[in-house]
Amino acid sequence: MPEFRQNLATKEWVIVAWERAKRPHDFQKDSELPKELPPLREDCPFCPGNESKTPPAVFSISARNVSDWSVRVVPNKFAALNPNLSTKREQRGKFLRADGFGIAEVIIETPLHNLTIATMDAEQVQKILRAYKQRYLEVAQSKNINLITIFRNFGVRAGTSLEHPHSQLIATPIIPPHVRDPFQQAMYYYDSQGSCVYCDMVKEELEQKERIVLESKHFVAACPFASRTPFETRIWPKRHTPAYGQISEAEVADLAYVLKTVLAKIRIGLNAPHYNYVIRSAPIGDEDTRYLHWYMVIIPKITTPAGFEIGTGIYINVVPPEQAAKYLREVEVK
Amino acid sequence: MPEFRQNLATKEWVIVAWERAKRPHDFQKDSELPKELPPLREDCPFCPGNESKTPPAVFSISARNVSDWSVRVVPNKFAALNPNLSTKREQRGKFLRADGFGIAEVIIETPLHNLTIATMDAEQVQKILRAYKQRYLEVAQSKNINLITIFRNFGVRAGTSLEHPHSQLIATPIIPPHVRDPFQQAMYYYDSQGSCVYCDMVKEELEQKERIVLESKHFVAACPFASRTPFETRIWPKRHTPAYGQISEAEVADLAYVLKTVLAKIRIGLNAPHYNYVIRSAPIGDEDTRYLHWYMVIIPKITTPAGFEIGTGIYINVVPPEQAAKYLREVEVK
Repeated sequence: MPEFRQNLATKEWVIVAWERAKRPHDFQKDSELPKELPPLREDCPFCPGNESKTPPAVFSISARNVSDWSVRVVPNKFAALNPNLSTKREQRGKFLRADGFGIAEVIIETPLHNLTIATMDAEQVQKILRAYKQRYLEVAQSKNINLITIFRNFGVRAGTSLEHPHSQLIATPIIPPHVRDPFQQAMYYYDSQGSCVYCDMVKEELEQKERIVLESKHFVAACPFASRTPFETRIWPKRHTPAYGQISEAEVADLAYVLKTVLAKIRIGLNAPHYNYVIRSAPIGDEDTRYLHWYMVIIPKITTPAGFEIGTGIYINVVPPEQAAKYLREVEVK
Repeated sequence: MPEFRQNLATKEWVIVAWERAKRPHDFQKDSELPKELPPLREDCPFCPGNESKTPPAVFSISARNVSDWSVRVVPNKFAALNPNLSTKREQRGKFLRADGFGIAEVIIETPLHNLTIATMDAEQVQKILRAYKQRYLEVAQSKNINLITIFRNFGVRAGTSLEHPHSQLIATPIIPPHVRDPFQQAMYYYDSQGSCVYCDMVKEELEQKERIVLESKHFVAACPFASRTPFETRIWPKRHTPAYGQISEAEVADLAYVLKTVLAKIRIGLNAPHYNYVIRSAPIGDEDTRYLHWYMVIIPKITTPAGFEIGTGIYINVVPPEQAAKYLREVEVK
């Protein structure tokens, strides 16, 4: 029997299509096996030795071996936004526009061309998460920046053709409805219930148990009750913290383990599917709010949203999250 | 210079990436040329002679030749929703759920396996649009239905692998935030401006002219100011009508011409890309509202939304709509 489920925080609905449900194994054959990559490519702008092909680094973590850096953050050479523009909103007739002011950076995650977070050691993943935090804190100081989004696109189906392991940070002066609407819902929830809706969601997932993929000291990873897509996995900090920049050193170490393990489970269990992950974080200046709670969402790209999803925003999920979580729980990671 | 633009109705922002802009011709090579299809496939459940492979038709338009039907509407055999379920909302712990009550139908657009709207004659397209209206009006009478979404998925990249020309109708008891939020914005706009925001948007597009693809007696087709994706095209009725079911016979004839022509321009100009189209229509019971206005949106699937789009809802559009509209205007359709 199909089922509607509502996301407690955003009030968005999904359809869990139990009757059309695919078994997790069905997705293994859909994805291409990852091709063997070399550890270094001379024509890759992010590989060591090609540092001059990117703008100068704004941040880097040095390493003892391999090369003289282990994580390197550079301005995005093909940035969608530009920090040297005005933020003035202007009318064009009845329509509103502004110059594309913003900051876009690339986090080069390792000098090695052939790694990915699922296959790195945890220490390297910690460095990446620390780089995210450092850049978050510095960019948050920039004038007119209101929102910082950190994300990773892995593979062509997730919107990138660049092989070298990297993530991105984009900071905008704009707070869009996609961020504001859940914020507003979280405020209404707080006004009714007196608690953070995300804290309550995490507690409820822990209580119902069946959708948990992994629980660590500081984080919970689960395929949430109202998952929009098969194997969508969220990683929530247990501590009420609205912004990613507030992550502690102990949490960084813990998150590195959780993120690496979840991505390894997805890679092993589903044949290295392309995926996006995003860190959703409160707007700048709202870091002390009692309503919001940062988290990561990992979305393997194994189904295609179609007209119904475009028209209604109601996603039809053909893998019930209970089955997805059970499957991922059982994938062994060495 | 990149540019932020806001959708007047929904308040959503896009980034028009003038610097990363691709020329329309760049997209021709990306798409596969459509393979030659036979007019009839014995193994196709929607081809004439296989009527018993679908549930009995709920509606059909008979033809003088070819076969005994020219448009046929059947319940979706693999429906995501089921009309024989309860609509009762229930708590599962703190989470809200309901059985998957709803109506899902398939509009089989022609007996001929190898046509598509871009290549049909206008008379056939009129029949399809009339079938949409008939089904809209009948389904709207069903108890507990609050929203009717009519859409078409063309090609694997748009979420369908079924070749036979078809559209779908899905009716839900749920009005999701994706529909409610723009409705609320339209109310606020009406309260401020005293007019329908969609009527004003159409007037403004006609005044600014440069994004118009086609104007007919009753409709305007344009790549809107805040297009989210390359060649996104909207077709608005000029007359203020909230729901698709209110389309007049004269408008059906006119829309058939506009829709067929726009889809033919996209097919010829961009090498038959896969696409979705959706008819956005007011919730049932709100057909007389002064705030809402039905329209069609056509989305060619030629770019891939990535982490930034998932995180913010801000789409980066690499073909400015002015260039997209100019290109489509100049594509000749015989």
